[in-house]
Amino acid sequence: MNINKNYLNLKDSYLFSKIAQKVSEYKTQNPSKEIIRLGIGDVTLPLAPVVVRAMSAAAQEMGRAETFRGYGEEQGYSFLRQALCGYYKNKNVLLEETEIFVSDGAKSDLGNILDIFDADNTVLIPDPVYPAYVDTNIMCGRKIIYAAGGVENNFLPLPDKNIKADIIYLCSPNNPTGAVYDKASLKLWVDYALQNAAVILFDGAYEAFIRDKDLPTSIYQIEGAKKCAIEFCSLSKTAGFTGTRCGYTIVPHELLAGDVPLNKFYLRRQTTKFNGVSYIVQRGAEAVFSPEGLAQNKENINYYMANAQIIAAALGAADIWFTGGKNSPYIWFKCPGKLSSWDFFDKLLGEAGVVGTPGVGFGAQGEGFFRLTAFGNRENIIKATEKLRALLLKF
Amino acid sequence: MNINKNYLNLKDSYLFSKIAQKVSEYKTQNPSKEIIRLGIGDVTLPLAPVVVRAMSAAAQEMGRAETFRGYGEEQGYSFLRQALCGYYKNKNVLLEETEIFVSDGAKSDLGNILDIFDADNTVLIPDPVYPAYVDTNIMCGRKIIYAAGGVENNFLPLPDKNIKADIIYLCSPNNPTGAVYDKASLKLWVDYALQNAAVILFDGAYEAFIRDKDLPTSIYQIEGAKKCAIEFCSLSKTAGFTGTRCGYTIVPHELLAGDVPLNKFYLRRQTTKFNGVSYIVQRGAEAVFSPEGLAQNKENINYYMANAQIIAAALGAADIWFTGGKNSPYIWFKCPGKLSSWDFFDKLLGEAGVVGTPGVGFGAQGEGFFRLTAFGNRENIIKATEKLRALLLKF
Repeated sequence: MNINKNYLNLKDSYLFSKIAQKVSEYKTQNPSKEIIRLGIGDVTLPLAPVVVRAMSAAAQEMGRAETFRGYGEEQGYSFLRQALCGYYKNKNVLLEETEIFVSDGAKSDLGNILDIFDADNTVLIPDPVYPAYVDTNIMCGRKIIYAAGGVENNFLPLPDKNIKADIIYLCSPNNPTGAVYDKASLKLWVDYALQNAAVILFDGAYEAFIRDKDLPTSIYQIEGAKKCAIEFCSLSKTAGFTGTRCGYTIVPHELLAGDVPLNKFYLRRQTTKFNGVSYIVQRGAEAVFSPEGLAQNKENINYYMANAQIIAAALGAADIWFTGGKNSPYIWFKCPGKLSSWDFFDKLLGEAGVVGTPGVGFGAQGEGFFRLTAFGNRENIIKATEKLRALLLKF
Repeated sequence: MNINKNYLNLKDSYLFSKIAQKVSEYKTQNPSKEIIRLGIGDVTLPLAPVVVRAMSAAAQEMGRAETFRGYGEEQGYSFLRQALCGYYKNKNVLLEETEIFVSDGAKSDLGNILDIFDADNTVLIPDPVYPAYVDTNIMCGRKIIYAAGGVENNFLPLPDKNIKADIIYLCSPNNPTGAVYDKASLKLWVDYALQNAAVILFDGAYEAFIRDKDLPTSIYQIEGAKKCAIEFCSLSKTAGFTGTRCGYTIVPHELLAGDVPLNKFYLRRQTTKFNGVSYIVQRGAEAVFSPEGLAQNKENINYYMANAQIIAAALGAADIWFTGGKNSPYIWFKCPGKLSSWDFFDKLLGEAGVVGTPGVGFGAQGEGFFRLTAFGNRENIIKATEKLRALLLKF
């Protein structure tokens, strides 16, 4: 048989394995020193009690003949899709249940959605960016062009009329930079997509961290977006579901490719290649959007955001350029002393025992920048920030 | 943007919607008559108590900081992969943990695996067959050829040396026919695959229903299979997980395409486009393979198989040709009186109030055949079989 040769064009994903290796070497050389990890974007707080209760109850239901559930609809149970419609109504976005596809997470969906597009499309991806956007497109041999982020545009690139793209990735709040598009900027992207018959793949995985009421938490808050955008979201960061696994994708009925509704194509994709998310997990996800669930998860997000403010304050005091940390759990900053991303990584680990993520791991434009995450516990964040503060004083 | 035009070549999947429509019409015309459904391959018995306990406990763990779990390995937790290694050891198949990929179900995996193969491959699919094999390959524009099943080969087609195929689907016990390959027949397929540098995609979703100790429950019980076969399995039928969602795929390290290990490609696919199965569900799956779980699920399977024997006995008594029902929850039989599949469907519904599945819905070779499933409760199975018996007497 012939393999998919596009896979041979993938670069090995060294980033996190290289970090792990460096941390391991440091540990061997400094067995008594404490290490604080602010590198990986994984949550640390446990699930909200209402979610745990819902999943325990659902597990019990599965054990009784009268309440047992077999195959559900591939797109998700109505109870969860209705809960999501309610969540979006509070954002002033009206959705139909059939526009929502429940899944095991945004990472799966961001890969799966590409099935419905031809290999012959030009893909526009911001740089720096979540690496899966790039790799999933290399896997099907698409042409990729980049929109450069940098200090000059606050890592929020805007459309260039001279460049023709068919599929556009936007991530806001951005991973890794934490930068958030405002409505006017997003409108420029929506207008560009409509003019170019392009589709925007909008990754809103961090929308729950937005606190500034003027910033959009869904692309559908922008006029025209339902005609050109697919939105991906996840409960991973909203509700600590990184190990529980649930996300959703919105494909509006108004979104057409010529006369083909993309919703119909994605429905066919999902009913053919997917069998839905566990009933137990969907009951947990439903509980996330109950008033009690929203309140409990808001507390968790407030906790992480207070962490972010502690880190941000230290960078501000040291006069370091940074973005994020206000409406996002990520803080992205310029390495001091014009150090490269990896040189600063080594310094931060070697001198402070703190593990972060080198910006260059997210794309060429990330060179010279660095990402810290606010998903740790308070005590560690305070300790790590003190060490960071001391290190920055040396520059 | 350009859509994937291969999707336009998909036929609408009318089968189950047409059945639903006919049942709905019958109900309107016969509001007082009872309907018994032996059509859809969904389980009805609740989950084993040990599985429910494991999932409840795991949900509780997720609610406490000390036991909370975030991202797990995309390929599945070691505790579950080790349990699967043990399950296979009892089949005399030795696997390494890294050869196993845990997923949300075989349907997903059967679609996802195709990512690692080029569109330029000839796919050989038995007819009749589970429709997803065909549709997932149409979606990527592959050439499909069929291996005809029929009474003459007991719906177990064997390889034809004059036909060149690159990707071969085998499903044993088969859905929809319930037929099971013996070791000698599977060996012919393995030899064919090795000679043609083809890969076998072996769907073993119903392996737990095999009771004849001489029949293979894994393709790796056949010499040489690790060099040419990927095996898919699911807990859906083994342990009633149709709504709980867990399956696994085995890609042996020995399986190469030229010098590329397919395991490495699939690992890259899964780590890029998947984020693992819910921790809670994986703990439930682990419990399935505990001694207590195996015993409890064996009872459930015995229950279904006793149902199958009741149906099979009625067909035998009426001298109807059938396959399945012995090592499979499916019974596949020749429609009496040379009726077409849909004509018999109408007669069985209209005269007996029993819903089955027309064989032609699984491929052209299924015309004139019919599928019943043993996944109902005993009382209904007995009632439906009496009605079927009475109907068959009329021919």
